Amino acid sequence: MEKVDGRLARGDQTRRAVLRRAVEIASVDGLEGLSIGRLATELGISKSGLFAHFGSKEELQLATVRAARRIYADSVVIPAYEVEPGLGRVWALSRYWLDYSRSRVFPGGCFFQKVSHEFSARNGAVQEYLAAVHTEWMDLIETAVAEAIERGELAGDPKQLAFDLNAYYEAANLASILHNDEAGYERARQAVRSRLEAAIVPGTPAPW
Amino acid sequence: MEKVDGRLARGDQTRRAVLRRAVEIASVDGLEGLSIGRLATELGISKSGLFAHFGSKEELQLATVRAARRIYADSVVIPAYEVEPGLGRVWALSRYWLDYSRSRVFPGGCFFQKVSHEFSARNGAVQEYLAAVHTEWMDLIETAVAEAIERGELAGDPKQLAFDLNAYYEAANLASILHNDEAGYERARQAVRSRLEAAIVPGTPAPW
Repeated sequence: MEKVDGRLARGDQTRRAVLRRAVEIASVDGLEGLSIGRLATELGISKSGLFAHFGSKEELQLATVRAARRIYADSVVIPAYEVEPGLGRVWALSRYWLDYSRSRVFPGGCFFQKVSHEFSARNGAVQEYLAAVHTEWMDLIETAVAEAIERGELAGDPKQLAFDLNAYYEAANLASILHNDEAGYERARQAVRSRLEAAIVPGTPAPW
Repeated sequence: MEKVDGRLARGDQTRRAVLRRAVEIASVDGLEGLSIGRLATELGISKSGLFAHFGSKEELQLATVRAARRIYADSVVIPAYEVEPGLGRVWALSRYWLDYSRSRVFPGGCFFQKVSHEFSARNGAVQEYLAAVHTEWMDLIETAVAEAIERGELAGDPKQLAFDLNAYYEAANLASILHNDEAGYERARQAVRSRLEAAIVPGTPAPW
């Protein structure tokens, strides 16, 4: 089995290398900017080898979104969830999100904002998956806010707070990439802080 | 000169018809989804005729952004500027923006959000023009807010208020297109109203 295992391991490595490059390309040029031909040329792999891994352009796009979701989870969600539930975690989510965009974890800025806009008005499996990831993300912010409300640290409607916080993140990301400056991040940080200050229950220690 | 004038008039009509279709296509498929070949086929015009009008793909993309800017001005800016300066105009800008997205003036939602994401991480004349339009739009909101501050109706930092309001508009647009529902508009309306209520000078009549 050693030979087979070796082949499997090499196959996994190839797949990971392809997806690592694919998320970078898609964050700049969109998922339509991905082609099996382009990836094969850039990575020195045969087109037929890539087809064996991904089957179709749509499969490649879906695998790329899944890979980006894991990177996003590692950069934003997991570190924020290391902070205990409550206002501190809501603030941590906001800080990690803005850091994730600012530090260009994906070279084109937030991968999901980019490709969600690209596919928003289309039909098909990629659009459906992106809509599901958006819902998952909004639910995650809402849950973090709801935990802070349950602990008596924030007051208000968790869905509305999640909408407002996410709006600041997205606006900062677009402005900073389009203008290649960082002003939007300071605006977003201030917006998040003011929004949380307006919802804070008096006596709660401020995490900022 | 009649014949020449007739040709010029027909040329103008063709150009307008091409750009009307081009902004629709780009709002769904992006500016890279525009091709002179596709437009020629859809509109029954020769490719050489289209090249005579636009010269290059980049020229066509720039002309499409200019045409979209005029439609945006007609849908959002001009009606809001019919309201007298002050808090009423800031509120009108927000209402007209959300109506513009909700009513799908462009079939894919906000044209500028779509194509700004598409080009944000690129270089060249299209990216530069889109960055300039973004600045123009943020300055316009900021001016409307500054007028309300000068009239003693709002208090605060006009740049921060402009950032926050625009963030709500953009987040509503993306959510509504991606999920094909209207929930984001009600969230954005509530967010705008709460944000303005927090900045209102007591005694100012509420426009909502």
